[in-house]
Amino acid sequence: MPRWEPDGVGRLQAAAFELFAEQGFERTTVAEIAQRAGLTQRTFFNHFADKREVLFGLGSEFQEEIVREIAACADTLPPLDVVVRALQAASDTMFEERRAAVTRRQEIIDANPELQERELSKQAALIHAIAAALHARGLDPETALLTAGAGMLVQQTAVRRWTQPAESRPLRELLSDALHSLRTVATQTTDQRVVPLET
Amino acid sequence: MPRWEPDGVGRLQAAAFELFAEQGFERTTVAEIAQRAGLTQRTFFNHFADKREVLFGLGSEFQEEIVREIAACADTLPPLDVVVRALQAASDTMFEERRAAVTRRQEIIDANPELQERELSKQAALIHAIAAALHARGLDPETALLTAGAGMLVQQTAVRRWTQPAESRPLRELLSDALHSLRTVATQTTDQRVVPLET
Repeated sequence: MPRWEPDGVGRLQAAAFELFAEQGFERTTVAEIAQRAGLTQRTFFNHFADKREVLFGLGSEFQEEIVREIAACADTLPPLDVVVRALQAASDTMFEERRAAVTRRQEIIDANPELQERELSKQAALIHAIAAALHARGLDPETALLTAGAGMLVQQTAVRRWTQPAESRPLRELLSDALHSLRTVATQTTDQRVVPLET
Repeated sequence: MPRWEPDGVGRLQAAAFELFAEQGFERTTVAEIAQRAGLTQRTFFNHFADKREVLFGLGSEFQEEIVREIAACADTLPPLDVVVRALQAASDTMFEERRAAVTRRQEIIDANPELQERELSKQAALIHAIAAALHARGLDPETALLTAGAGMLVQQTAVRRWTQPAESRPLRELLSDALHSLRTVATQTTDQRVVPLET
């Protein structure tokens, strides 16, 4: 996977996001993106398989980083904390400096049903990767999948807040806030059963 | 939307699920489904727009039922309980008698990436419908979306368990169990902040 390079990937991505916003995703060509970035189409294809990958290409890097962080996290932490800390670490390195680009990317995806479907597929794949990483730490598969799903809920809630125009707090902090919100939602319940002892 | 009718919709669905399992979704035609069900293609198209709708057609009815239940639920219940009770009510009327068919449907979808994408889109739409119904009860939009997402996590966890071969408990009970599991996952956390007082 290409690393984030301001001189190549970054310029192409900025150009693509501008054009997608100006004239729509469907009507933008790779030739136009390369031209706007002042680069050749060959350089574009060195970094991206197609124009859709400009929006989704960094997803695998994000996933790898999260899986790595989960594997490296202290054994003593509860599973959902492990996931949220991994999301925070990946946010610091991959998202925090790119709030405007992430916001613009989200607007482009929200405007196109086909891109929304791809985003949902990527999220589902990320949930399964997180669950596998938790299972590798010894969590049973069912709890691993539930915890991964809860982690993605936290991530989505935090990113939605982070990309609001009036929001200036770092994503790391909003992830903590969203975890706290999920905890509040889950505990305000009439489900009064006692947690059974492990047998 | 067509109601669930064992004599028409039910026979067509049973026939379609058999054929999808035997020869794959892609290779099954509407003519074959109608023939296996002992009905005409015209009857098929009275009930379904295409063969994909045999898998997803009941989704809108499920969504309408949940939204109706949420609107009718007592004001004193916490939001996540409102959602889980609505899911339980809809499960009783739409799922409980159809465990084998729902299990087979899930296997067909799991085997086909295009159907998986459609399933994810339907789930996303259901989350937004549940969030809108909660917002209509006075919950702020952000908490409504988070609660709806948590409700769908509960639903997915419960249905996954319910469609296991060794599982015989009713879906209603597994929904309660899954809510309890989510609560456990969410509360086992080092997030120790005090819930701020409402201002």
